[in-house]
Amino acid sequence: MNSKQKTVAVLGNGVVGVAVAKGFAELGYRVIFGTRDVSGGKTRDALQAVPGATAASFAEAAKAADLAFIALPWNGLRAGLELAGAQNLAGKIVIDATNPLDLSSGTPRSALGTDDSAGEIVQRMLPEARVVKALNIITSSHMVHPKLPDGTPDMIIAGNDAAAKAAVDAILQGFGWRQAIDLGDITACRLIEPFALVWISYAFKNNHWTHAFSLLNQKAA
Amino acid sequence: MNSKQKTVAVLGNGVVGVAVAKGFAELGYRVIFGTRDVSGGKTRDALQAVPGATAASFAEAAKAADLAFIALPWNGLRAGLELAGAQNLAGKIVIDATNPLDLSSGTPRSALGTDDSAGEIVQRMLPEARVVKALNIITSSHMVHPKLPDGTPDMIIAGNDAAAKAAVDAILQGFGWRQAIDLGDITACRLIEPFALVWISYAFKNNHWTHAFSLLNQKAA
Repeated sequence: MNSKQKTVAVLGNGVVGVAVAKGFAELGYRVIFGTRDVSGGKTRDALQAVPGATAASFAEAAKAADLAFIALPWNGLRAGLELAGAQNLAGKIVIDATNPLDLSSGTPRSALGTDDSAGEIVQRMLPEARVVKALNIITSSHMVHPKLPDGTPDMIIAGNDAAAKAAVDAILQGFGWRQAIDLGDITACRLIEPFALVWISYAFKNNHWTHAFSLLNQKAA
Repeated sequence: MNSKQKTVAVLGNGVVGVAVAKGFAELGYRVIFGTRDVSGGKTRDALQAVPGATAASFAEAAKAADLAFIALPWNGLRAGLELAGAQNLAGKIVIDATNPLDLSSGTPRSALGTDDSAGEIVQRMLPEARVVKALNIITSSHMVHPKLPDGTPDMIIAGNDAAAKAAVDAILQGFGWRQAIDLGDITACRLIEPFALVWISYAFKNNHWTHAFSLLNQKAA
């Protein structure tokens, strides 16, 4: 094993977790899935889908990780992070792809209104982690290799730590995104998460899930 | 004069009103600016900028129009529509480009929260008009001829009347947009107007105003 190989803890082993785990494995990361059920069928399926990956408890995965990716459903977010343990993620980059979806009305809407966001909840629960919001405005199958027939999309990100955002930009470009669009500190999740509702509403209205946004004419670097 | 020539009432003669008036004039429309001050300097400037345009009171412009474009600032929206008169716009397409911006905190946010929108306010004030939200996610200089070096953007729209949305799609394509993206009935403004905040936040953060979104890999028609 390459001693410089980085380890990513993918917290959650559903379709999102498996998709990004494959992407990280392609980039040379060691993948550890964090899960409640290390020996369950869902975990077995995830491990089969990602050669070389292993599974551990949320806490063990978080502790072993150089960085973590939150691939938990909204209703499992808080419990998953409590199991992972804030101390195990202190100082580490934590990518949060969560959308606080309320589908109870039949129309997708935010479960949090305009004065909070999932990204901020994650940052509050992991106060010493370097949380970066990313990949919440895309379907799981296009989180990695998002190139589309009419262009390569961009992903909007936010977070308090500039170096962490630069690292996530590099990861996203490694995954095949054109660029990360930095919208500001973690409170910008109050804009990024509602933006995901535009993506989701288009999907529901058209029963079409493989669309993605690009921001044309960005400011020159 | 072409007897089939359509008349557009552009309600407001600031930078947005002048920009779209030029676009409508290019498409062959007769332009009437609706204004509080028909003989004022701002109106004179607008008329000079749009050859062939005339100016009238909000009510006269609305009455003469085949369709109307709302180019009013958020804090002048209700008063302008009251002056225009709901009866003068009954049955007509009304394009609303308003953003309910609250900049008082220093961070752009919605003045309306998540349970209402400017588009719905317009539709409630003009109950018999065929309101279509459009052109609220772009700077005035790119509302017409929005083509950018790296692509041609799309504009998201919403409204209750399918025929009106199809007509607005044709107008937008005439202006040079790739396509209108229909997000649903007028309540979808609860998503489209917050989406504008993403555009605006990027502009504020980067002091850069000429960006625009495209939706890649749309559902085939």
